[in-house]
Amino acid sequence: MALIAPSRRLRRTPFSRGVEEQGVKAYTVYNRMLLPTMFESIEADYAHLKKHVQVWDVSCERQVQVQGPGAAKLLQILTPRDLRKLQPDRGLYVPILNQNGGMLNDPVLLQVDFDTFWISIADSDLLLWVKALAGACGFDVEVTEPDVSPLAVQGPKAEELMARVFGDAVCDLRFFGAGRFRTRNHDYVITRSGYSKQGGFEIYVDGSARGMPLWEELFEAGKDLKVRAGCPNLIERIEGGLLSYGNDMTDENTPFECGLGKFVDDNQLDHCFGGRALKEEREAGSVQEVRAIEITADKLPPCDRAWPLHLGAAIVGQVTSAAMSPDFGVGVAIGMVSRGHWDAGTMLEVETPEGTFEAKVRESFWA
Amino acid sequence: MALIAPSRRLRRTPFSRGVEEQGVKAYTVYNRMLLPTMFESIEADYAHLKKHVQVWDVSCERQVQVQGPGAAKLLQILTPRDLRKLQPDRGLYVPILNQNGGMLNDPVLLQVDFDTFWISIADSDLLLWVKALAGACGFDVEVTEPDVSPLAVQGPKAEELMARVFGDAVCDLRFFGAGRFRTRNHDYVITRSGYSKQGGFEIYVDGSARGMPLWEELFEAGKDLKVRAGCPNLIERIEGGLLSYGNDMTDENTPFECGLGKFVDDNQLDHCFGGRALKEEREAGSVQEVRAIEITADKLPPCDRAWPLHLGAAIVGQVTSAAMSPDFGVGVAIGMVSRGHWDAGTMLEVETPEGTFEAKVRESFWA
Repeated sequence: MALIAPSRRLRRTPFSRGVEEQGVKAYTVYNRMLLPTMFESIEADYAHLKKHVQVWDVSCERQVQVQGPGAAKLLQILTPRDLRKLQPDRGLYVPILNQNGGMLNDPVLLQVDFDTFWISIADSDLLLWVKALAGACGFDVEVTEPDVSPLAVQGPKAEELMARVFGDAVCDLRFFGAGRFRTRNHDYVITRSGYSKQGGFEIYVDGSARGMPLWEELFEAGKDLKVRAGCPNLIERIEGGLLSYGNDMTDENTPFECGLGKFVDDNQLDHCFGGRALKEEREAGSVQEVRAIEITADKLPPCDRAWPLHLGAAIVGQVTSAAMSPDFGVGVAIGMVSRGHWDAGTMLEVETPEGTFEAKVRESFWA
Repeated sequence: MALIAPSRRLRRTPFSRGVEEQGVKAYTVYNRMLLPTMFESIEADYAHLKKHVQVWDVSCERQVQVQGPGAAKLLQILTPRDLRKLQPDRGLYVPILNQNGGMLNDPVLLQVDFDTFWISIADSDLLLWVKALAGACGFDVEVTEPDVSPLAVQGPKAEELMARVFGDAVCDLRFFGAGRFRTRNHDYVITRSGYSKQGGFEIYVDGSARGMPLWEELFEAGKDLKVRAGCPNLIERIEGGLLSYGNDMTDENTPFECGLGKFVDDNQLDHCFGGRALKEEREAGSVQEVRAIEITADKLPPCDRAWPLHLGAAIVGQVTSAAMSPDFGVGVAIGMVSRGHWDAGTMLEVETPEGTFEAKVRESFWA
């Protein structure tokens, strides 16, 4: 692996000092910000995440704040999900689409005040999209990137750690539930969510100066829980079927292709960007869909490009995330597979830069 | 330095194989794509660039293609530069502004056909901004990211190498001049431009499959010129005063602050985004401006965050790019300095994570 060259353009976060102190070994760049990807090793980080509790610097989940009397109306043209479902005590996963129904982002939307919303974004500059639309369409809103940096607490002991710092009530949050919880005289917006299947929370740290004190408070409180710094883990998130925007879907893919059809509400398709394309796809059926792919291999190279899926000479899809799973003893992968070849049990071959391997389409993900 | 974690989301380029074969040691991420930053060492790369010729993979300068009858009109609302200056044989540097006059990008605009334009972007998702405006305002255009990847040839021997491959006529291009030049049965758009002060060209490689054959042709033709793979060099670009979007300017800065006032045409300010804010700034004067800063130090840490510039206890600016210059024997830097303190010769102090150093405001850059 090559090094990452430091520059202001790859933005540091309120927690970067803590991450460095705990020996971060590798980063990716996400929304032009540093996101740790490895501390000890991908495998050791994975084993720890499944057993204990980790604190993750996911500041790169930047917030697009939409504030003002026109906010709700503007938001509704961005997504095919019916936003009347939105409530202050609950986050909503909302596909954001371009004019062709392609995915521009797959964020979580939070209502943090009567007419203030945070879109917690995946890796694309949604800020520019929303700002441009707000301006061009004359919505009465302000669109900004506030000083808010999410900190995730993930793992089976996440509840225990969060309860110690924020009180037992935080454990009453349901999945995607949101509330405000206090420590050291400040109320933080907290949701039960996160980019792992091990359970956990995301704390929306408003105000960079609060970052390191909260980081240290969590580590102090969790010493006996073996808490350590972590990050979204490649293996664990593939096992759990957590798609990554930019890896497993791009603006070339529709929500139906990405298995996000349940977040498309038919009654919104006349009102949102991309609605017409989705109606047509609903009629005609999708031409490809995301699937869990099991690869028979002893070793896999890093999946740094799409790997073609073959059936004989024909290309019938591609793998976009892959890793060897210590717990399942196979290559776990996420791919996009063409209609006619996506049924569970279909046997294909995946072509990697280091050889071709057997690849089986699975019914579901591993965890 | 930490490692960079490979993933499809950090896009490879048509030239990545060539870059790897030549031993790339470090990358940055630019427009969600890999951009090499170091081969031998920053200092050795710098010495070679100033003496010989290098081929740079700058595919990350993605093109936003605007095509259709409404293209010229749409482009004109994006920038305060008068686009009647645009001609098919010349690129134009065009600041792109948000509603507040803040810089969204500082690209080069090319007219590649009667109603087809390429915006060769710096590091922000301008594609989303332009797509949103085109859709919301009903311009009759298509906005896409075409399969076009710039390859730069830079250094004092760049003319010699380019003439060998594309013919002597390529040397007739003036600065920012554009034309089509042929090799191996394909006409490439080529401009005399690039992110160094050593002279050179950028080849707009249309079609990824042409990438490696052209790369190999250049290296074959330039063997005796000591051609090698290179990349924008931190030291050289600071010496030359080449600003970096995301480092030396962000959407918080106006073109006047960035020393780009000559690209603002007053007759356009009623028609473009941010025009009103620029008019007000033109009246009132800017509150800060970019300056060359000379730092007295033997060694500097990487400038991975803004370093405050102090005058006694007061903060009067910040340094955003810095490196030790082997040729000038000082720390060379780019900073934003407040009015009242930006005159040449002003002595300040710069606070870095590894100590505070004397910093002098200079009249101009080094090269």
